[in-house]
Order: sequence, then C-alpha cells, then structure tokens
Amino acid sequence: MKDVASLANVSIATVSRYLNGELNRMSTQTAATIKEAITKLNYVPNSAARQMVTHSSKIVAVAVANIDDYFSTELFKGANSILESHHYTGVLFDSDSDNQRENELLNSINQNNFDGLILQPLTDTADTIRQQVKRDIPIVVADRELEKSSWPEVITDNYASAQRAATYFYRAGFTRVIVLSSDVSAASTRRERFRGIQDVFEKIDVINIPEESYQRQQVKAELMQLISKTNEKTLLFALKERWLLEFIAPLFVSKVIDPQQFQVTAFADTRLAHALTPEIKLIHQNPFLIGASCAEILIEILNGNGTQVRGKNIVPAEFDWRD
Amino acid sequence: MKDVASLANVSIATVSRYLNGELNRMSTQTAATIKEAITKLNYVPNSAARQMVTHSSKIVAVAVANIDDYFSTELFKGANSILESHHYTGVLFDSDSDNQRENELLNSINQNNFDGLILQPLTDTADTIRQQVKRDIPIVVADRELEKSSWPEVITDNYASAQRAATYFYRAGFTRVIVLSSDVSAASTRRERFRGIQDVFEKIDVINIPEESYQRQQVKAELMQLISKTNEKTLLFALKERWLLEFIAPLFVSKVIDPQQFQVTAFADTRLAHALTPEIKLIHQNPFLIGASCAEILIEILNGNGTQVRGKNIVPAEFDWRD
Repeated sequence: MKDVASLANVSIATVSRYLNGELNRMSTQTAATIKEAITKLNYVPNSAARQMVTHSSKIVAVAVANIDDYFSTELFKGANSILESHHYTGVLFDSDSDNQRENELLNSINQNNFDGLILQPLTDTADTIRQQVKRDIPIVVADRELEKSSWPEVITDNYASAQRAATYFYRAGFTRVIVLSSDVSAASTRRERFRGIQDVFEKIDVINIPEESYQRQQVKAELMQLISKTNEKTLLFALKERWLLEFIAPLFVSKVIDPQQFQVTAFADTRLAHALTPEIKLIHQNPFLIGASCAEILIEILNGNGTQVRGKNIVPAEFDWRD
Repeated sequence: MKDVASLANVSIATVSRYLNGELNRMSTQTAATIKEAITKLNYVPNSAARQMVTHSSKIVAVAVANIDDYFSTELFKGANSILESHHYTGVLFDSDSDNQRENELLNSINQNNFDGLILQPLTDTADTIRQQVKRDIPIVVADRELEKSSWPEVITDNYASAQRAATYFYRAGFTRVIVLSSDVSAASTRRERFRGIQDVFEKIDVINIPEESYQRQQVKAELMQLISKTNEKTLLFALKERWLLEFIAPLFVSKVIDPQQFQVTAFADTRLAHALTPEIKLIHQNPFLIGASCAEILIEILNGNGTQVRGKNIVPAEFDWRD
C-alpha cells in the first residue's frame, strides 16, 4: 500500500479510501493514478490488513432459517438487490432448521469481519443471539419476531392475513379446517397464523410435520385418514408452501379428493404454487420485499441513520393474489 | 490475547491454537484453563487480528449460478454437510445468472479472507476466474466444465444420461422432441445434454428460455404452438427442473395435451417434481452429492493432500429414479 501511495504520489489514507470505494472523496484524476499504480505493481490488497485499517469487509451476512424454502432464498435475493446497489455483497448462511447450527453460524459471523447481519431467526429470544454475536454489528431481524429485541424487524402480517383467508372460506360454508404445519408453538410466524385461524374456526385438526426430517408416507397417511373420516366441507390450510406442494397439490392433481367438499389455501411465496394450481386461492407473502426492506434498513444504520428505522415494519401478505 | 495467555499461564501461541480449534495440540486441562480465562476476561477474538496471525477464517465460499434453482441450493446443502463435520462454515454467494455479478462476487471473495472456494461457474473459461481470484486459495469447480482449468471438477454425466433417456423414448416410438432450455451454447451442461439428445433424435425443436428474465406467457404460447402443429409422438424434454414445473407440468395437470401422444422427461434435482408428477420418468441428478464431493476434495486440499484429487470427478445421474 505504501508502494502504491508512493508511485501514485498520494497519501496512504487516499489509497485506503480508494480501496474502500470512497471515490467521491477524491478527483477522477487521483483515482485513475492510483488505479494505474495498483495495476503496475500488481498489488492485491491483503484483506486482513485492509480490514484492520478500515474495519469494513463490504460483506453483509444474511442468515436464513432453511434454504429448502423459497421464502429464505427469495429473502436473500431481495436483500442482495439492495445491498448490491450500495456496493455491498450479501452472503448467505443456512441454519438448516437446526438451532445448534444457528448458534454455530452466529458464532462464525461474530468471529469474522462482516459489516452487518440480516437474520431470519430460529430462536425465539434476542438473548440467544446476543450470546453468540458479541460484536456491535448492525442487525436487522426478518420474518420472525423476537422476544426482548431492540433490533429493527421486518415481518409479514401473519395473524391478519391468516384470519382474512379463514374468514373467506368460513363464509363460503366450510366448517372444519385441517392445518399442516411444523410445531405451531416453535415460531412466532406459525403462532400468529394459527391464532388467525382459531379466531374463525372451532373445528381444527393439526398435522404436525417435524421440521428437520419427516416421513413423507406417514404425513400422507395421516392426511388421508383425516380426510376420509369427515363429511363436512373442510378447508386444508398449509402454513407454508412446501407442505402445499408436497402433500396437498398431489391429491388435487390426481383427483383423489372431491374439490366440492375440500378446498385449499396456503401461505405461498413463489409463482410456482400458483402456476401448478391456478384455481387455489393463496396467501402470497413477499419475501423478496421483506429481504429488500431489511437491507434498506441495514444500509441506513451503516450510514449512521439507524435511529430513524427502529421498531417493527410490516410487509402485508395478499390473499387470492394473481400473477 | 496477551491478557488471556497471562491469566491462563500459557504462551500466546497456545491461545492462538485454542482459538483455531487445534485442541489436539494441547491437554484438555490447558484448553479448560484457556476457556476459563477467556470467559473471565470476556475476551472476544478480533477477527481481523486473528486472521493476520492464522490466515484462516474457517469459512469456505460456495458461489453458485442461481439459487432460484434447487440444484444450487442442494449443492450448497451437500457442501455444508461435509464442511460442518470438519469445523468449516460454508457461505453462499449467488451469481444470479449474471456474468457481471459473478465477476463482482469473485472479486469480493478475493478481497476477503475465505479459506477456499467451491464454484458453480457461469463463465466458460478458467482465465475469467483467475482474473478475479488472484490469491492462491484452493478452488473446486462444480457442475460445469471449464476450459483451460487445472482445478478439480465434480460434474454429472450429462451427455450419457441425456442419451440414455432419449434412447428410452425413441424405442417407445417417439420420433420428435421439443427441448426446453436456456441458451444451449452458453453452458457445458446444456451442450452435453443437447448432444446426447441429438445422438438419438433427428427432429428437434428448441424453445429457448432466456435465463435472466423470461415472459411466461410467451414461452407458454410458443410451446402450445409447437404442440398443436404436430401429429407425431413427441417427447417434451426439459433441460432443467424449473422448466418442467413451470411450463410442462401444468399442461398435464390440466389435461390440455394427450398423454398418449406426448410424454415428458427432464433433468430434475428434487423430490418435488416427482411428488407432483409421479408418472413422469425423470433424470435425477444428485446435486447434494456433487456439493458434498466438492467439499471433500476441498478439505483434502486444505489438509495438504491436494495432488491426489485433481481432475474430473463424475457423479452419475439416474434415469427413471424412484423415491
């Protein structure tokens, strides 16, 4: 870096600014001279040395619950779309629906030099996160609410949108509901959605699909048993898109069940569910927008405007959304 | 770190080894004493300082072509499953099917302190990658072959498996094929698959779906037009799962086309396509295993055994695979 500064006839601080992309703080001529010197000397900035000086890697960690779900990948895409335009790079960490793994990832993020963290948490409480992330880096929480958190959150209106959908089917004469979900009590998203359904329906059966690993045949059998034992008009309500695609869509495609007696709704994130089952009225979340909103807030904090963006930010879901 | 060493009554080098997880190089008692000292002093290892000493972040970059595709997310899951067990963390970079973006990601990986790189490249030549990644970090290439590359590669047997599937349908009396693919010439995977089909079929139509953004209605219309103008027994061949799910599966589900005249095959990566369309004979790749194999090779190189694992490694695809 000294050699580059010397050859370009500028200060080391100016080379450092150049390397951090702060080009607005120098003339075009100066930037061009530094670039030339770098090329001439074939200089590769040593990341660790650079980080010691600047405390910035220009990389933001995006830790998601499970990239098996479109929600998580879309969230990452949305965050990246904003980060990119501010010359940050987003990298994805996958907690893989495993709390122990989430702890390890957060620890790794703490140990390394990321500029910020967008987190779709598995854990329910902010304390668990603070135990791992001891450094004072900006954090924005996505999708799931945390207890005792002072970080900004960007979430879907889970309760209201579930209630809206349930009400629609109740008014259409449906008196029972079968809910497909992982452990309802384990995540704020599921609790809120379930509460919205409970507000409308009295007769509720729940098929509990373990998040980490599940026996497909067993889930199928359980669902078929509940379906076969009722004559009432019954709503099948998947609390996430994967359960709709894996367990419910095949029943309709293969005409196993009567579409007069059974109808379906689900929280869905992509165009895929809609393309496959255009007749189903879905609750469409917008994970891309949630990710983008998280990144916008994080950028504000990184730019020193954090105090204006604290608190809870709602990205509404749409019922019966059309492509 | 000096304070920790002093309190634990060990050398700074021993603390450094402890922080890098090299616990086999000290007694359990020593490790416990250091841990106690760290807790007492509430010491957070400064990542940049630590990296200056150890040159290791224990993080491996996994740069994939596009996480819209299951292939990429499964590849990442597979890599992580191996990396984890060797105490590395994998982070995902998404090139988003954009060559310019891939360049920027590689540059960011070069500038920061990752221990290795598993790359599903968009570019065709190793030179493009070398222009960005100037540091001498271990690289393993996944899924797509590179020209002029000396890095180990882990790929599917694209040509042979496409030819195997095409032969099956040709023998069953199918005389035409409609191929759904992004630009066939742009990726080695697609070129190889197409070559396998060309070896069997003479009458081939190609629907070219632009990778970065496509008009769904337009693709649908183009497909319907090709379907309606033929009376021959025709195979619909999707070179990736997404095109099967988005464009072909809905036609069968809604019974728009005659299953006697038209049959389908596709390169598919997940159980989803199979769950939705159990009657379709798919070519099942194993991206999880490809990712895991890449990570195994990378770990070998990181452990200094790189010379034994150079060259091309094939993970075969299975035709008519059953869950």
